[in-house]
Amino acid sequence: MDDRKLLETVMDIVGRENCLDDCAVLPCGDRFMVATTDMLHRTTDFVPGMTDWQAGWMSAAVTLSDIASMGAAPKYVLIAVGLDDWRSLSGVMQGAKDCCTRFGAAIIGGDIDRHDELTVVTTGLGLVDKDHLVRRTGARPGDLVCITGTPGQAQARLDGYPQYEKALFEPQPRVDEGQILGRAGVSAMMDDSDGIALSLYDLMSVNPCGFSIDSSRLPLPAAIPADQARELALYGGGDYELIFTIAPGRFPVQGVAATVIGTAVPEKAVMADGKPLEKRGYQHHWK
Amino acid sequence: MDDRKLLETVMDIVGRENCLDDCAVLPCGDRFMVATTDMLHRTTDFVPGMTDWQAGWMSAAVTLSDIASMGAAPKYVLIAVGLDDWRSLSGVMQGAKDCCTRFGAAIIGGDIDRHDELTVVTTGLGLVDKDHLVRRTGARPGDLVCITGTPGQAQARLDGYPQYEKALFEPQPRVDEGQILGRAGVSAMMDDSDGIALSLYDLMSVNPCGFSIDSSRLPLPAAIPADQARELALYGGGDYELIFTIAPGRFPVQGVAATVIGTAVPEKAVMADGKPLEKRGYQHHWK
Repeated sequence: MDDRKLLETVMDIVGRENCLDDCAVLPCGDRFMVATTDMLHRTTDFVPGMTDWQAGWMSAAVTLSDIASMGAAPKYVLIAVGLDDWRSLSGVMQGAKDCCTRFGAAIIGGDIDRHDELTVVTTGLGLVDKDHLVRRTGARPGDLVCITGTPGQAQARLDGYPQYEKALFEPQPRVDEGQILGRAGVSAMMDDSDGIALSLYDLMSVNPCGFSIDSSRLPLPAAIPADQARELALYGGGDYELIFTIAPGRFPVQGVAATVIGTAVPEKAVMADGKPLEKRGYQHHWK
Repeated sequence: MDDRKLLETVMDIVGRENCLDDCAVLPCGDRFMVATTDMLHRTTDFVPGMTDWQAGWMSAAVTLSDIASMGAAPKYVLIAVGLDDWRSLSGVMQGAKDCCTRFGAAIIGGDIDRHDELTVVTTGLGLVDKDHLVRRTGARPGDLVCITGTPGQAQARLDGYPQYEKALFEPQPRVDEGQILGRAGVSAMMDDSDGIALSLYDLMSVNPCGFSIDSSRLPLPAAIPADQARELALYGGGDYELIFTIAPGRFPVQGVAATVIGTAVPEKAVMADGKPLEKRGYQHHWK
């Protein structure tokens, strides 16, 4: 059992339309509010060597990334902290606060609980003009497929490249880029936190098209053998880059460093270099 | 170390003004949005004998109760579920959905994670007209102190009275009552989830007054010796009644079954029957 199969159970109960995007979308005056929640905890998410401050930073960052992927500006974060050791609290809270402050959001509330292991759940709320909201749906055949930054760095640290520790321990959500891309009219967007391959499959599942990428165009982390670097970018977890589709005439977008890695195609398939791309990446598994 | 002391650490980092109420308050068009998050988990909150459905119901109910205590209408719930056994998911989600549906809210998003023990974090969003928002602050000397329903029932089940199982396992947040009380102009309100005594101390900490109650006026659960029943109501956890203060001329409030148990007084003290009330109740503790 993996989390994408479990999501089907959730869809049956709460409705498919509530499970299609990185955030829920609510009316809020003349704008939209977007809302998202993420659970992280020690054994799965907080890698040995991370400080409490970094655990807090990461917890806020993953939620801000979801908001960024909708083209919205993060505004408010709620944080629930389950503590095995109360001494972790101030570091976790300070890290979360520093990340929120850096990206224009404020911590407005929370909960503290006693727990077997450090567990942090952040809920983020953002605002976006109705015209600039971006969803996972909206991709059209012929659109370019693009990615911000250099994917694969977080997984590179997990696979033995210590120079990429900061990418894994202190991820930088693409908050400014998300809003610029929303205003520029990208057609679909999500973050690549489970790797590029799974992201493309997720996008295909909600769009009437597939995707064909050219792996030689992937921007790759430096000082890693090319084959391994490609593997990290396609299948690694822990990155918070934005993957988006955009009409060719709208690219490049001023103010956003992004690379074209392929195109949306009429066929319902995800292809890399003319062959089907393996459907794997970061997932939770249950026995 | 207990959670009220840890809250001081949080206040120092995120600001005292963000920690004073059951919910944060945000502008949303011409109304206020209120937002709250709560973490529950198996070892602390989900009592042996509870079904997955009841764990989901309770998880939604505690968050809806926080929204009710601000006088707001619950609208949206996000739910993050940490699962030791994936088979729990459908029951938990169905219970949370049924509770939300009963009280006028919808589940709009969530997250699924693998975890050592069942852990559920619900985040609730509600809406309220600006004039009808109720906070913990606002109590004035001379106000009546009132409570809805019959407190002590949830703790009665924990202390060996099986007839009160439903009160503990399927708490009914006072969603309708909270909104009626907000429109009726109550001066301060919170829920009594940590017991009446701690709630009164919490209210005193943010108001320029104290409280004097008459324990003989407490509505008590039936078929329990009176001394024990009073103890359960004052110091027990797991109830989700609303405790509020109101100017005498505004009470009773049509449509709300509530009992006057005392008055707000100029002295900064919490008294019961003329003696200081013990400051204890449900709290998390860390070594």
